[in-house]
Amino acid sequence: MTETSANQNSEGRVHHRHLEQSREQIIELLSRQALERELVSRTDIQNQDVASQLLDRQHHAQLAQRLASFHPADIAFVLESLAPEAREMAWHLVSAEQRGAVLLEISDAVLPTLVGDMRPDEIVAAIRDLGPDEIADLVAELPDDVAPTVLAGLDRAEQFEVRSALSFPEGSVGAMMDLHYVSVREDATLEAVQRLLRRLKHDLPEENTDIFVVDRSNELRGKLSLEQLVLNEPEQSVNEVMTRAPTFFFTDDPIKDAVAAFEKYDLLSAPVVNLHQQVVGRITVDAVLDEINERAQSESLRQAGLSKEEDLYGPVLQSSRNRWPWLGLNLLTSFGASRVIGVFDNVIVQFTVLATLIPIIASLGGNTGTQTMSLVTRAMALDQLRSSQLRQTFIKEFLVALLNGSLWGAALALMTYAMYGKWEIALVIYGAMILQLLLAAMVGVAIPVVLRRIGRDPVMGSSVLLTATTDAMGFFIFLGLAAIFLL
Amino acid sequence: MTETSANQNSEGRVHHRHLEQSREQIIELLSRQALERELVSRTDIQNQDVASQLLDRQHHAQLAQRLASFHPADIAFVLESLAPEAREMAWHLVSAEQRGAVLLEISDAVLPTLVGDMRPDEIVAAIRDLGPDEIADLVAELPDDVAPTVLAGLDRAEQFEVRSALSFPEGSVGAMMDLHYVSVREDATLEAVQRLLRRLKHDLPEENTDIFVVDRSNELRGKLSLEQLVLNEPEQSVNEVMTRAPTFFFTDDPIKDAVAAFEKYDLLSAPVVNLHQQVVGRITVDAVLDEINERAQSESLRQAGLSKEEDLYGPVLQSSRNRWPWLGLNLLTSFGASRVIGVFDNVIVQFTVLATLIPIIASLGGNTGTQTMSLVTRAMALDQLRSSQLRQTFIKEFLVALLNGSLWGAALALMTYAMYGKWEIALVIYGAMILQLLLAAMVGVAIPVVLRRIGRDPVMGSSVLLTATTDAMGFFIFLGLAAIFLL
Repeated sequence: MTETSANQNSEGRVHHRHLEQSREQIIELLSRQALERELVSRTDIQNQDVASQLLDRQHHAQLAQRLASFHPADIAFVLESLAPEAREMAWHLVSAEQRGAVLLEISDAVLPTLVGDMRPDEIVAAIRDLGPDEIADLVAELPDDVAPTVLAGLDRAEQFEVRSALSFPEGSVGAMMDLHYVSVREDATLEAVQRLLRRLKHDLPEENTDIFVVDRSNELRGKLSLEQLVLNEPEQSVNEVMTRAPTFFFTDDPIKDAVAAFEKYDLLSAPVVNLHQQVVGRITVDAVLDEINERAQSESLRQAGLSKEEDLYGPVLQSSRNRWPWLGLNLLTSFGASRVIGVFDNVIVQFTVLATLIPIIASLGGNTGTQTMSLVTRAMALDQLRSSQLRQTFIKEFLVALLNGSLWGAALALMTYAMYGKWEIALVIYGAMILQLLLAAMVGVAIPVVLRRIGRDPVMGSSVLLTATTDAMGFFIFLGLAAIFLL
Repeated sequence: MTETSANQNSEGRVHHRHLEQSREQIIELLSRQALERELVSRTDIQNQDVASQLLDRQHHAQLAQRLASFHPADIAFVLESLAPEAREMAWHLVSAEQRGAVLLEISDAVLPTLVGDMRPDEIVAAIRDLGPDEIADLVAELPDDVAPTVLAGLDRAEQFEVRSALSFPEGSVGAMMDLHYVSVREDATLEAVQRLLRRLKHDLPEENTDIFVVDRSNELRGKLSLEQLVLNEPEQSVNEVMTRAPTFFFTDDPIKDAVAAFEKYDLLSAPVVNLHQQVVGRITVDAVLDEINERAQSESLRQAGLSKEEDLYGPVLQSSRNRWPWLGLNLLTSFGASRVIGVFDNVIVQFTVLATLIPIIASLGGNTGTQTMSLVTRAMALDQLRSSQLRQTFIKEFLVALLNGSLWGAALALMTYAMYGKWEIALVIYGAMILQLLLAAMVGVAIPVVLRRIGRDPVMGSSVLLTATTDAMGFFIFLGLAAIFLL
């Protein structure tokens, strides 16, 4: 039970707010220490008397002790919240035993700043006690020049397991699974199972809520929950009380499917099998939780065209680069869109007021399209967009856009007439608004659908693509209508 | 174990893909049936011979049987995927015993279409077997004119429990908690606990992974996991093996905190206490999973200004209305932004090419701001944005914008010069680009921070607010610079 190791208070309960407070405190302390250190190192080092050096060392020991009382996830949080110098200092305070667990919890953006200063043998020492699947997760994130050396530092059996864990493609159940599970035969009695568990006591997998039932060749036969074990008589056989048809996954199933199944059927763990239906690992609910959380956090980043997490305290150049690809694309598309206006500059010369109204059409198109796109992306994530429903969505979004375009277009036309007193221009903007909303809705459906069909992430950069299209379209529709009706 | 009730196959295993296929099949079948029905009802009803009526009834019975073999979550999925007529027909096929569980799983957007046709006593019959917290969740979603009648239909004790569950504010742990839990005293032996569980066998809460340890006045003393129960000797007392400092929550803690704690400490369940530290309920990992999933799905909808889920097959008018508030706001803000251009129309009359270039500045500002905003929103969700970090983020985003503005601004200036051959205009757009990206980054940080500080959802409508601001700013900066340097 991981939570037992978290700091306890005298009342025998721990509330998360206490924890937050002590986390805040230690972040403060570490930041201050790092600052003082820097100040000291700038002044003459000889001037520092022995007493203050001792004090410094004492402070350090206290800080290390407090950090050690934290859950690895909280240590990771503290490290992520610190500026580079303080982070480096704090990392040295983390005990060797906890380092592996902390590395597992730390965000991908911050991981390189921690392992960057470590020698390969230090990394090996830190991760040695982790499971092969956990080591594989970490090794996959290590810089390419360090990873092989770290792998080579493990013993042969471990190397083999890590390599096979690394062989599953990213995003597959195989890459996510935990290799550590307990299995029994179906003719065993519950008493025997209980004896087995007690014997394994100190070597049991974490979150061990279910035991898998297999036959002689390790093929999956069923699942026995701890609850089933507790609620039935010890003389009963596994076969009598087990769940005969547990939800299971193949190693090459997408993680997305596993996440959906856990959510829907309230699973705590599920067996993973190979093509011969032999159990090779398990998926636990805590891994699913981490997965969903990571996805949830990255969705709006990906929409804006940011593929990677960023370290809050990482170098500016690195963060800037992270934004270049879509910024460059955006520059090109918006330059293209601006050429659409260029084509119609004879209309603008005659009616300067049009230049004023262009952005309204562009902006309303962009936001309407974004709304539709969000709905479609959501339906996709829920697997609720088969071809018949896609047609239905198209029709519906078309009608919604028609209604809203007519309604709000009329409002806009009235405002335009009140402002500029020209009914021809009011009429043009009315027509442009209806057409623009119709097309924006279609584009909002089309972008994620097309991105997915060509095998891309339907969210990545979708908002940049959408606004580029709705901008160019809006300019063309509005100025085109103006050219037809005003010239 | 809920998954046992899912359809089993002869091999004693159930893979989610089988399930998906049969789900697709039944959606097909139901849609076709509903269509046929409609065709029949349009032709003369008398012409339908007895044989085909029998066939129809037989089909129905078969469909009902297949639906009954599904997990409630899958029935909900099927209903959500059907058009209104087919959905209504399918809902009548769902057995009375399953209806309550299905209503719990169905999305808020589709719920009203199902309960809309039911009489209050039918609703009461459907939900009677659910727990008071589950009933409270459903009653909160019922139309205001139906809810009181349904509540009145429950017996007095149940009414009381439902009302107290309803009294917790939305978004609090109290509103999310499950009232059904098992508690024991710390001086009990593990054997006694096991006997208790066996006695309660058919009345145990779902996902019962932990038993809470309380004292005489029901104050929380610790937590006993099923694993601890299984791994230790029956003669040992609860006190000897329990987790003494379990993570717990108060009823008024925000759900967000509970979600973070479950994710971080890999909890399966946690006790909820009142102000006197007395246990009043529990939070389970499956509820947390549902919560995260719902949040993840709604994030990009809220960003686009859609507060509610939409029924894919709901009426067009309803969906249109859902989009009105932000569409209206967008119309006003973009009209305001367009007035900024109006102020400078004397510059545009002289340099029509400016009208062509305006949207580039607006678009790049919008997308840069969105990127920054996504990063800030994410840091907020992770609780990593205290005041010192906020300053750091401000500085960093400022530097990133300065670098990117200088770099990509130069590219844009070169393109402009190549296209229009006027170096004054190229210089103006260079300056405008730097200023615009700087301001867009500041706005991207400011919008979620300000929304949260005034107590609003920092995501709701944020993309509409952002583009409105960056548009107006971009126009002002670009045309302002042009007025200064070109006139």
